[in-house]
Amino acid sequence: MEAALITIGEELLIGQVIDTNSAWLGQRLNELGIKVMKRVSVPDNPDLIAQAYNLCMSNYDIIISTGGLGPTSDDNTKEMLCKLYDSKLIEDRETVEHIKRFFADRGLGLSEVNRRQGWVPDKATIMHNELGTAPGLYFHEGKTHVFALPGVPFEMKNLFENKVTTHLKMYLAKGTIIHETMTVSGIGESFLSDKIKEWEENIPDDISLAYLPSPGLIRLRLSMSTSNEESGRTQLRTLFLELRPQVEEFYMSDRDERAHETLFRTLKELNKTVSTAESCTGGTLASLITSIPGSSNIFKGSVVAYENSIKQNVLKVNATDLENHGAVSREVVEQMATNVRKLMNTDYAIATSGIAGPDGGTDEKPVGFTWIAIAWEGGVQAKLFKFGKLREVNIARSCVHGIHMLIKQIRNS
Amino acid sequence: MEAALITIGEELLIGQVIDTNSAWLGQRLNELGIKVMKRVSVPDNPDLIAQAYNLCMSNYDIIISTGGLGPTSDDNTKEMLCKLYDSKLIEDRETVEHIKRFFADRGLGLSEVNRRQGWVPDKATIMHNELGTAPGLYFHEGKTHVFALPGVPFEMKNLFENKVTTHLKMYLAKGTIIHETMTVSGIGESFLSDKIKEWEENIPDDISLAYLPSPGLIRLRLSMSTSNEESGRTQLRTLFLELRPQVEEFYMSDRDERAHETLFRTLKELNKTVSTAESCTGGTLASLITSIPGSSNIFKGSVVAYENSIKQNVLKVNATDLENHGAVSREVVEQMATNVRKLMNTDYAIATSGIAGPDGGTDEKPVGFTWIAIAWEGGVQAKLFKFGKLREVNIARSCVHGIHMLIKQIRNS
Repeated sequence: MEAALITIGEELLIGQVIDTNSAWLGQRLNELGIKVMKRVSVPDNPDLIAQAYNLCMSNYDIIISTGGLGPTSDDNTKEMLCKLYDSKLIEDRETVEHIKRFFADRGLGLSEVNRRQGWVPDKATIMHNELGTAPGLYFHEGKTHVFALPGVPFEMKNLFENKVTTHLKMYLAKGTIIHETMTVSGIGESFLSDKIKEWEENIPDDISLAYLPSPGLIRLRLSMSTSNEESGRTQLRTLFLELRPQVEEFYMSDRDERAHETLFRTLKELNKTVSTAESCTGGTLASLITSIPGSSNIFKGSVVAYENSIKQNVLKVNATDLENHGAVSREVVEQMATNVRKLMNTDYAIATSGIAGPDGGTDEKPVGFTWIAIAWEGGVQAKLFKFGKLREVNIARSCVHGIHMLIKQIRNS
Repeated sequence: MEAALITIGEELLIGQVIDTNSAWLGQRLNELGIKVMKRVSVPDNPDLIAQAYNLCMSNYDIIISTGGLGPTSDDNTKEMLCKLYDSKLIEDRETVEHIKRFFADRGLGLSEVNRRQGWVPDKATIMHNELGTAPGLYFHEGKTHVFALPGVPFEMKNLFENKVTTHLKMYLAKGTIIHETMTVSGIGESFLSDKIKEWEENIPDDISLAYLPSPGLIRLRLSMSTSNEESGRTQLRTLFLELRPQVEEFYMSDRDERAHETLFRTLKELNKTVSTAESCTGGTLASLITSIPGSSNIFKGSVVAYENSIKQNVLKVNATDLENHGAVSREVVEQMATNVRKLMNTDYAIATSGIAGPDGGTDEKPVGFTWIAIAWEGGVQAKLFKFGKLREVNIARSCVHGIHMLIKQIRNS
């Protein structure tokens, strides 16, 4: 089955919002074995929305649109769908009740505008939106499936996972696309590609390999289309088992997860805890770890010591070392790691201190110059990294590399 | 003039890569006064590329495509453009010389595949690509302008800034599209829409209003097309000045910026500092603030007190209060704010303590139940929020609301 995605909203066309919805949908549909052949964005203009729908519906089986379902006057999708399906708006009592409850839970009454969200095309199957007020709409005529979803990312994702997939799976062929992923850290894409060239050349033709790089981490993904998921997975995993000895130094995880998710899983399995002392990462390491539900099992806290006085007064870094070596130094970052571990009474600690940029660089310590340390019971280890010029990327890489250092230490001990 | 954007590449459709090129192009074209009416992504398939081109060319004056110009076999755009413009490929000597030098600089020779990049449609105007090997192509027939650019973001951007804008400016009318934005916090989209209905109805027809919501914050954007930017801006700003008294309680900023950017700007203007004590936000508040270059001028640090022992030992929260009222309480969050302000010696502090979810909720304190406090010299204020069920959104909303509380306090003092 082939699909087209329509994202609606002027903000997508003038670049005020980056269209992450269609990237996410593309990925999920791909995993379900549905090929996305077209992606189109149009403003909140009924004619242009209708044109996009008409064109997609004459070429593809599945159309998913996001946006244009809100209560405000610039949202037109519902009216357009009524015309397209010769349908009329009727009040859906269950939806109105849900909207009432939704606002009552927040101590608010129901406005006329919100009540309008309970009006839906009579030919649509309603997909109730627990997390918001605009319901999703599903139309199925002939071989065409049309799903209209709200544009708010978390509402859209929740509806897709819980409602759209249920409808789609009834019509999907048996074959699915399966993926297995390995993540590695500390090596560039082209160097990795050179290093594993021979292994890559021996991958069977029906299996494809993708390099998915992000700051500090590369996801290597093997994919194949199969009717026997179990034997397919075994085949992919065997390939990665063959690869692993060649990349052991860089190996992070055999799952499709981000670095902090690997750290969470590793610590949870061992029933261990971690704390962080952050200068250049400014709380991002703590923020990543605590983004995971249940992280309180493995994470106790962090001191974000952005100013030197905090390093000295809260983290008890030696004032003479701070003065003699500067905040971005082995001496300071080692003390940050050792002392936060004691302060927070955790099994491990990670500390970062670097020049994130764009300002603050010197000849001796240019932008990107970053010390990272890890501490454990009776030990500490620090390493110097020379990252690039982009602040955002430097922060992200510091987090991943700090986590990678700790995971390697845990594995080797 | 109206434009359409075509981005080419399977990676955009299966969500492997987020389409930031078209967001960037949309923004730049909009600044030039060119309205992007459509954005479409297709895989590297000659028929689908041609179909997208044909459709866009029959409706819009300017078509800009990115991708599909590379040397590998899955790049088809050039051949398709030859057919479209009844053109044939010829070797462009200047381009071939540039490609030779490009590889020589990197100690590499010229392969046959790379030499092919020097072949271009004879009816195209070549736009030389200093930063890469695939040149940009420009076709101009009748009133239609077609620009084919490489997909690598920094090559694309460089060509656009240095070549495409030069070509376009010759044909542009004087008018540009201008925007003014106001951000508000603490009110839902539909309630806001109800509240400002009358004001909205009186907006002149040539000015459009958009609601751009994100967790905790709504950006209200007024747009118009004008040939006199100054008087246009005055007109938009006057409209917002009329609106402001009606939304004063929720008002955050008169610029298009995120909450932490408003906080940064406010504190920097006053030469004041802030620190944070974070439980449920887990370092996200610190991470947002420190994502801004130069944030060290206004931010000293944070204690992420995820476990109660850290609240007690590092933030010196009273143990009896912790026991009697629980970590998510007015008593505790007020002490967190007051004490971190003292510990870090800052002018202001923000503290958060809530049930982020999905677990940890009780009947009395369900998921989403969140206390936020701000502290200043001689004062502290705490407020209870009842957010929803999603961890990620609760964290984001806690950050925005904490910032909004502080900004209101600063404004009113």
